[in-house]
Amino acid sequence: MHRVRVRIVEDALDANNTIARANRDDFDRAGVTVANLMGAPGAGKTTLLERVLGHHGLEGVRTGVLEGDVQGSLDADRLAHLHIPVVQLNTDGGFGGECHLDANMVRSALPALPLDELDLLIIENVGNLVCPAEFRVGEDARIMVSSVAEGEDKPLKYPLMFRACELVIVNKIDLLGHVDFDMDHFLHHLDAVHPGVEHMLVSARTGEGVDELRAWFAALPERAHAGAAV
Amino acid sequence: MHRVRVRIVEDALDANNTIARANRDDFDRAGVTVANLMGAPGAGKTTLLERVLGHHGLEGVRTGVLEGDVQGSLDADRLAHLHIPVVQLNTDGGFGGECHLDANMVRSALPALPLDELDLLIIENVGNLVCPAEFRVGEDARIMVSSVAEGEDKPLKYPLMFRACELVIVNKIDLLGHVDFDMDHFLHHLDAVHPGVEHMLVSARTGEGVDELRAWFAALPERAHAGAAV
Repeated sequence: MHRVRVRIVEDALDANNTIARANRDDFDRAGVTVANLMGAPGAGKTTLLERVLGHHGLEGVRTGVLEGDVQGSLDADRLAHLHIPVVQLNTDGGFGGECHLDANMVRSALPALPLDELDLLIIENVGNLVCPAEFRVGEDARIMVSSVAEGEDKPLKYPLMFRACELVIVNKIDLLGHVDFDMDHFLHHLDAVHPGVEHMLVSARTGEGVDELRAWFAALPERAHAGAAV
Repeated sequence: MHRVRVRIVEDALDANNTIARANRDDFDRAGVTVANLMGAPGAGKTTLLERVLGHHGLEGVRTGVLEGDVQGSLDADRLAHLHIPVVQLNTDGGFGGECHLDANMVRSALPALPLDELDLLIIENVGNLVCPAEFRVGEDARIMVSSVAEGEDKPLKYPLMFRACELVIVNKIDLLGHVDFDMDHFLHHLDAVHPGVEHMLVSARTGEGVDELRAWFAALPERAHAGAAV
């Protein structure tokens, strides 16, 4: 008898989405809203988190952080003084180190997180403007940080990342005047790749705009429950 | 009869290395020295190339550029005024866009390059501090650009990249004093992950250090032929 065997080769992204949904179910059961924070290396993601979560943090919103890095625990160490749950996730189990977090890596970190004691979990992704945008991890909202030092052309060069996010934080505005960066050009490019996306101008160094960003994060759980965030 | 079938599953990096060697053979036959220029998005790779290759370029060294980007031809367009061979290579054929160049992508661009008319080919990789370091493309030397705006901790967070390079260019030194960056700390971290690696302090914006960098590139073919570069 002639027998034909059909083997379904699952797309890596399909598998990722399946696990992302499982993560999402766990987050929903625990009542945790999840933000995926992305950006290039050195855009200022960790410094922004220090600023936003420092002092009195997000008033009334119990927050935890999952720090994704290729290796080391530098970023988690920097957040240790905040006295909130911080878990470091390293991606160097892959060959040479994975350049992004995927749903399965986040899933492997869930047992280390006190989900039942959190309202908001912020996942700081690996510094990279390409692959993190391709892998959902079960988050409610995706936020990216773009520093003015990186140049005004970045939305055109990395459109998937800018398109994937609900909020674009333009950081290091204290450097305007010291770098060749025209904010109008940047916002024009941003609008071209992601029309109408919310953006915020901040400086993690001087604190300018940080109150507004803190309010955005503090309101995220309520917005997510109302179905406003994706 | 019981039959066992053994299937060799080739490592993706093995396949890459095989193609990288084939590229290298082609480069050698044409007498072209190849530099792989890497760095984070916005580190200033293209601006540095404009500076180094502008004016009279590398005196006596016929130079071409292969521009790697996820999509678009912004960087190649910026180099068009240099009147040297510039080929744009886009990686968005992959799902969502590949975050690095690999040997096969570079190989696909070779027919578009006038190798026989070049002494030096500079390949500008996709902006990323992780994966480009994992994929040889047939180059003689690897150079990375790290901007002081990215922070002094980058060698510790992305050690593979800093370890992979023969030259580390510390760019945007005109911003020292406007950013929290201690050069001694950075160089200490750099030495920890790649002891003794050559480094150069430059500003693509003001031109400081660019003459030294131009001389480095101009001398690369001779160094490569003498077997000094890897």
